[in-house]
Amino acid sequence: MRNLNHETITEAVLESQGQTANPRMKQIMDSLVRHLHDFAREVRLTEDEWFKGIAFLTRCGHITDDKRQEFILLSDVLGLSMLTVAMNNDKPAQCTESTVFGPFHVQGAPKYELGADIANGARGIPCLVRGTVRGPDGSPVPNARMDVWQSDQDGRYDVQYADIDHAQARGVLHADAQGRYHFRSILAVPYAIPHDGPVGELLDATGRHPWRPAHLHFMIEAPGYETLITHVFRGDDAYLDSDAVFGVRQSLIADWKAQADGTYLVEYDFVLAPVAMGAM
Amino acid sequence: MRNLNHETITEAVLESQGQTANPRMKQIMDSLVRHLHDFAREVRLTEDEWFKGIAFLTRCGHITDDKRQEFILLSDVLGLSMLTVAMNNDKPAQCTESTVFGPFHVQGAPKYELGADIANGARGIPCLVRGTVRGPDGSPVPNARMDVWQSDQDGRYDVQYADIDHAQARGVLHADAQGRYHFRSILAVPYAIPHDGPVGELLDATGRHPWRPAHLHFMIEAPGYETLITHVFRGDDAYLDSDAVFGVRQSLIADWKAQADGTYLVEYDFVLAPVAMGAM
Repeated sequence: MRNLNHETITEAVLESQGQTANPRMKQIMDSLVRHLHDFAREVRLTEDEWFKGIAFLTRCGHITDDKRQEFILLSDVLGLSMLTVAMNNDKPAQCTESTVFGPFHVQGAPKYELGADIANGARGIPCLVRGTVRGPDGSPVPNARMDVWQSDQDGRYDVQYADIDHAQARGVLHADAQGRYHFRSILAVPYAIPHDGPVGELLDATGRHPWRPAHLHFMIEAPGYETLITHVFRGDDAYLDSDAVFGVRQSLIADWKAQADGTYLVEYDFVLAPVAMGAM
Repeated sequence: MRNLNHETITEAVLESQGQTANPRMKQIMDSLVRHLHDFAREVRLTEDEWFKGIAFLTRCGHITDDKRQEFILLSDVLGLSMLTVAMNNDKPAQCTESTVFGPFHVQGAPKYELGADIANGARGIPCLVRGTVRGPDGSPVPNARMDVWQSDQDGRYDVQYADIDHAQARGVLHADAQGRYHFRSILAVPYAIPHDGPVGELLDATGRHPWRPAHLHFMIEAPGYETLITHVFRGDDAYLDSDAVFGVRQSLIADWKAQADGTYLVEYDFVLAPVAMGAM
């Protein structure tokens, strides 16, 4: 433990955490330390660069509050969020795929009846959303809880407005006994993730744009089924092949249809994966 | 860019940052993304663990302010700080070694004349500190700027007290024309790094103690020489072989001698490394 050099220090840190009580914690921390040290050695990190990293994380922490989550945003743009989602949601082929949770979900969104307008004042072109929730065998999943959220026509979620203190374009509904759901909201549009903070600086410095293709968020829960966290994307979006957070799945793209009266209609059927028998 | 899985996403992220203007930035970010993804795949990180990681970083950010730096503390206990110091301070054999900067340095510490008592009210057993600052050839380095800081007898730095708003046990002095310095302060004692926050939770969970062996911090600057950031450790300390931040060097350990009047004396000579010709 004395005179550690840039090679021997890794084993010393691993040894120091050798008494970790939880074996899973030990596995994670050992791997984290090895990769963190390998990274620093591989690039031969300078002290100035180290300090810039500390300052970057500090700025991420200080801009994060109950309405903004810069660390999730950072994880999203580095592909860590989608990687984690992909590893943990290997569903049967016919089931609806998962994608990133994102930083804009709010616990305790208002409850609505089927057919209600969840926009609740959010600006945008009216859009009817409908479909069914089924199991892999095609049978309806009754009364699934559906938590829905999206941005307004300016690409901002309600929580991004300092002067809006009530939920807009988000809500919780329950599908009916036949698995059917429908509600009104607004047309989803592409938007830039918040890029006025440290994650925006990172995107700038790495020559990346902050745009996400238009989408509507869903979190769907029903007894006996795995919780599904996903989006429905718009098929005509220019950013489908350059999503800033790597979340697009072909199977999640729907046709959002312009109606004669200027409103839109999107229909999407979800297929939930049953909870594995061993896990019930 | 559609349907990325947990393997293909890494190349997609690397490709997205392919237009990074600064080649060094590209090298660092490419390596960071590869190691971050390899880590997540290696441990097969779950979504719950991912969220715990986000929450941990958020807590680190929120406890960090102008007097507490939890991200430096985190880097310190993971050995990243000492690794970075070791990689970047490969000095000629006879020069004083570097060690970690730590989170308790303060810019703009008060200036003192040689011989002054920098304790300035900090509690502890009085201690005289003296020595010389030389070059590798043994010739004195005149008038080096010496920034010194340490904890009090309770193991706390001035900035850790909510009710102390002036500098204690820290100050800036200049060695004389013959490289000699002397000042009064207090006896260094072992202390626990701040462990009432997320880094403390991490130490607990990994079966580690938060203690550092007693030391006095120095940052020494002189024209023509590399800035030296180091400690002088106490030779009789129980934590020399289990420093929570992996910073101990045998060559930095000194004999802090008890004097007949109950005070202490420590003598340490620093040897600065000349700036490499190419870098001047």
